[in-house]
Amino acid sequence: MALPQQFLDLRDNVRNWGRWGDDDVLGTLNLITDAAVAAGAAEVQTGKRFSLALDLKLDGVQLGAVPGRVNPLRTMVAVNSGMLPDSDTFHTSDDVVFMGLQAATHWDGLGHVSYDDTLYNGIPADTITEWGATRVGIENVKTLTGRGVLLDIAKLHGVDSLPLDHLVTAEDLDAAATMGNLEVRSGDIVLIRTGLMTKYHEGDKPTYNGWSGSPGPGLSAVGWFHANDVAAVATDTFIFEIFPSELDDAMLAVHMLNVVDMGLTQGQNWDLEELSADCAEDGRYSFFLEASPQPFVGGCGSPVNPVAIK
Amino acid sequence: MALPQQFLDLRDNVRNWGRWGDDDVLGTLNLITDAAVAAGAAEVQTGKRFSLALDLKLDGVQLGAVPGRVNPLRTMVAVNSGMLPDSDTFHTSDDVVFMGLQAATHWDGLGHVSYDDTLYNGIPADTITEWGATRVGIENVKTLTGRGVLLDIAKLHGVDSLPLDHLVTAEDLDAAATMGNLEVRSGDIVLIRTGLMTKYHEGDKPTYNGWSGSPGPGLSAVGWFHANDVAAVATDTFIFEIFPSELDDAMLAVHMLNVVDMGLTQGQNWDLEELSADCAEDGRYSFFLEASPQPFVGGCGSPVNPVAIK
Amino acid sequence: MALPQQFLDLRDNVRNWGRWGDDDVLGTLNLITDAAVAAGAAEVQTGKRFSLALDLKLDGVQLGAVPGRVNPLRTMVAVNSGMLPDSDTFHTSDDVVFMGLQAATHWDGLGHVSYDDTLYNGIPADTITEWGATRVGIENVKTLTGRGVLLDIAKLHGVDSLPLDHLVTAEDLDAAATMGNLEVRSGDIVLIRTGLMTKYHEGDKPTYNGWSGSPGPGLSAVGWFHANDVAAVATDTFIFEIFPSELDDAMLAVHMLNVVDMGLTQGQNWDLEELSADCAEDGRYSFFLEASPQPFVGGCGSPVNPVAIK
Amino acid sequence: MALPQQFLDLRDNVRNWGRWGDDDVLGTLNLITDAAVAAGAAEVQTGKRFSLALDLKLDGVQLGAVPGRVNPLRTMVAVNSGMLPDSDTFHTSDDVVFMGLQAATHWDGLGHVSYDDTLYNGIPADTITEWGATRVGIENVKTLTGRGVLLDIAKLHGVDSLPLDHLVTAEDLDAAATMGNLEVRSGDIVLIRTGLMTKYHEGDKPTYNGWSGSPGPGLSAVGWFHANDVAAVATDTFIFEIFPSELDDAMLAVHMLNVVDMGLTQGQNWDLEELSADCAEDGRYSFFLEASPQPFVGGCGSPVNPVAIK
Repeated sequence: MALPQQFLDLRDNVRNWGRWGDDDVLGTLNLITDAAVAAGAAEVQTGKRFSLALDLKLDGVQLGAVPGRVNPLRTMVAVNSGMLPDSDTFHTSDDVVFMGLQAATHWDGLGHVSYDDTLYNGIPADTITEWGATRVGIENVKTLTGRGVLLDIAKLHGVDSLPLDHLVTAEDLDAAATMGNLEVRSGDIVLIRTGLMTKYHEGDKPTYNGWSGSPGPGLSAVGWFHANDVAAVATDTFIFEIFPSELDDAMLAVHMLNVVDMGLTQGQNWDLEELSADCAEDGRYSFFLEASPQPFVGGCGSPVNPVAIK
Repeated sequence: MALPQQFLDLRDNVRNWGRWGDDDVLGTLNLITDAAVAAGAAEVQTGKRFSLALDLKLDGVQLGAVPGRVNPLRTMVAVNSGMLPDSDTFHTSDDVVFMGLQAATHWDGLGHVSYDDTLYNGIPADTITEWGATRVGIENVKTLTGRGVLLDIAKLHGVDSLPLDHLVTAEDLDAAATMGNLEVRSGDIVLIRTGLMTKYHEGDKPTYNGWSGSPGPGLSAVGWFHANDVAAVATDTFIFEIFPSELDDAMLAVHMLNVVDMGLTQGQNWDLEELSADCAEDGRYSFFLEASPQPFVGGCGSPVNPVAIK
Repeated sequence: MALPQQFLDLRDNVRNWGRWGDDDVLGTLNLITDAAVAAGAAEVQTGKRFSLALDLKLDGVQLGAVPGRVNPLRTMVAVNSGMLPDSDTFHTSDDVVFMGLQAATHWDGLGHVSYDDTLYNGIPADTITEWGATRVGIENVKTLTGRGVLLDIAKLHGVDSLPLDHLVTAEDLDAAATMGNLEVRSGDIVLIRTGLMTKYHEGDKPTYNGWSGSPGPGLSAVGWFHANDVAAVATDTFIFEIFPSELDDAMLAVHMLNVVDMGLTQGQNWDLEELSADCAEDGRYSFFLEASPQPFVGGCGSPVNPVAIK
Repeated sequence: MALPQQFLDLRDNVRNWGRWGDDDVLGTLNLITDAAVAAGAAEVQTGKRFSLALDLKLDGVQLGAVPGRVNPLRTMVAVNSGMLPDSDTFHTSDDVVFMGLQAATHWDGLGHVSYDDTLYNGIPADTITEWGATRVGIENVKTLTGRGVLLDIAKLHGVDSLPLDHLVTAEDLDAAATMGNLEVRSGDIVLIRTGLMTKYHEGDKPTYNGWSGSPGPGLSAVGWFHANDVAAVATDTFIFEIFPSELDDAMLAVHMLNVVDMGLTQGQNWDLEELSADCAEDGRYSFFLEASPQPFVGGCGSPVNPVAIK
């Protein structure tokens, strides 16, 4: 099988290999300069905060579609455990967790996707081993923070949740920016709201998981991410991109182009509901965003508690 | 055994039970108002960022002193796994982790400590069960971000690392604030540097773990935290507080007073080395700090990747 | 709520508390004397072996009905890992697993069930803590081996799998023994076949899990276990006993009577299909059975690979 | 580097590839015929049982030498958890475990060792993937039971524990068989006692782990295993074989020859102390042994609770 020409043309257009040096493992996160962070912090006006993370719990998002990507199971190794018998002394409780790093609200690291036996920046895919991503592990991303913008595609189309076959296009993204009175800047972290998260909140996990298809960005959006020098992108969906994919012969094409070719860190299962309501209310769709991953050495992804501050 | 009078007097002085309502489960984090967050963001000038987290890895901080608090073991559930046989299609890598929530750089949640069968705000300790902290779980802390200040006690005393028996006192804290040209404000997140982390970086884990004692804040510091309405406190040590404790009959007294009486969220294993060097260089010891925990439902603690931005 | 009189009467009849001493933690396993083991070994004629365990895998029996009882997830910590670069030297592969101890073919230990705040032999239920079964942990069962007998209730009734509402009675057990030309002896390990495992093999996990009810032994069978001095009992079902239970006010009555009152170790998810076919063929329903649990300190259960030898 | 000629010669002598067919994945376990099992069962006289397993617990054998081979951490997912509020109803306790499959008393499966990019029977080493041993997984070993013999080398030399540099030779094995009045037969499971386990019981884990060297079988023993058609071999040591190895250029030579060339399943950390004492007392060094692994799909090893019955 050969990848379709439309894919290959887009790939040639958006590929960032070598752009930040042959040894680079950060990709578009390089666009988050100190100045971009400072500009992001300058978005803070009221100090109102929004956590965009789903609760970490056994009864979480995962239904088993990705084998091994298990919901968090947190258990106790000490419950009010005292070193002395007296009750009026120090007692402590401690816990452990077993979880998929991509189980809930998370970032895909640059080790998460390969094709043509290759990772971002031409790094051989076989640098992913049983030890994890030995070259592009997520511990390299020390911080991930800057200006965030919400592109509320669901609101743009006047729906709580986009139809399951809604392809988020470059035009959608531009229109949402216009609706939000936004200028997207180099180094921005872009949050794309489809509203699909409402299905999860309603308890309809299969629909949220995309069993009947999922709205999400497609090929033209990839071009848009590149043209706008976006640093990172997250959605409020399980799959991230439109599913089924636009091209029969390039399943999960957006994943491949984003992660492998652009070196774009992408996020899934972000809960944008409360933020969306607030942005609609005050008309401000930009904010400071702090969403640094946990520094798992060799990690192909990481849970994240993204915090938007307005 | 009865807790010593000195402890009880201090307890009566610093106890915040009821201060934010009988149902409160956030404690001093209530001091981080929107205004405090906005003021914190206003500290950002250059956009320079510092991750204060240790790498998450099997060869980490833990040596077994706290049974069950195991170092992170991250393993792979997919390595360049393709759904189709063709190499030029989408391939994916995914990972899982088993770890103690308090294994590396972390916050102690308010469920982590009890005494007299009681948690913060008079909540019964038996609300900690095999399911975790059913009342004061760390998922209640949606965000933890605001103004951070570094009180560099090691630098104050002109050493790389404080002697193992160095008691960090209220006087130390005031002097370090003065050295840093700082006014500590209500709602600040205070980072106390002892320099002990240098031992870990040098590979001397037993010393870092406090096997021969550990420098850290003591009883007068607790009073200082309360008098200054500090929102949260973190150190660059394993044990957090001075060890052995000042009072023979009140082991880990600071833990008890901080967590149970004040409702003060406290952090351990924070790596303040790079931040310390930078503060010494530019003379600015305040910054924006984002250190929101991961929302583990029922969690008694959480790993955190704290990010300081100047 | 009070337990119904029928339950209480049966309880008084079958309770073994004190029978093997006030400190006993083995219950009916005490019935497996050295002589019983020797008699069991004497059942071996051909040396033909049958493993009665289900494969341990992520795609296993569990569907989530018991929160936290997760299917095994085995991952690699080394894959052909060499200490030297040369390929012609020693390379090694190692794995870890996270699993519920009761996830697949398993024994319920005596810590698995309590009622009236009490475990077997009147041991307080609060001896089960976050550390596990501190008094009745499954590590106390060093070995569990002896004469096994198959009571093939499905075959008795001429069906592949009993109807979901089939109550396995004392009469069933006697009739199956007669069909098998068996005399059940003190210390025997009794395997009860309902045929429900065929549903699992056919891929119908919900039916196997008992979502629509499950055949299994009921109250009269409990009396039969006691009257026959059975050492341990296992079934080829998920729930073990008839479900829904016979008495509205005594859900899982058989679990309570077996484990708490008799101190009877019971097994679930045993695959008896191949053994059943062989017994039908050679007419011999007794065999040597080795089914020792893994010695998890404090364990409330254990996976087991039971081996029948004829 | 090339493997030394002495290794290569021995390899040519003992290699069993193709002996049981090109698709064989059981190796010398094929030697355990039904007749051998029946003969093993015939060893049972008194029914006295010996568990040869170490307790499974966090404070176990592992000290970190093999990264990721972690001691078992068992935690609770339910502690006397009731579905109804009434205390006189069914309550249940359940547990989960995270552990290295080779952490305690275990079998090495045929996926555990490779060299020359090859596993037993010429199977390519790259059939070990992140999914485990896809060809030679330990689930293929349905049962592992038969006649066991104890070759008590420590007793042979009149010591509690062999010196750390004691090489167990073919002569040792023959002499121990003679001492035990044993004829080793095809299909036997051979247990070699060095006494090193006494160090573990005394709390000296580093010595037990072989930090100062370990007694164990060497090259001549490998030839002996092959000449005697041994089905499986286990020792009471951490490393299994003599350490450091006899040949500088063939580290862990016995592992390579046993597992890769012979297809010999080998066991470690078997506790032979109680069995040794009993054999010395009654003079009988043969017994029935049941030591079937847990059927982990793709497993490179498995914990085992071996039971010897006399």
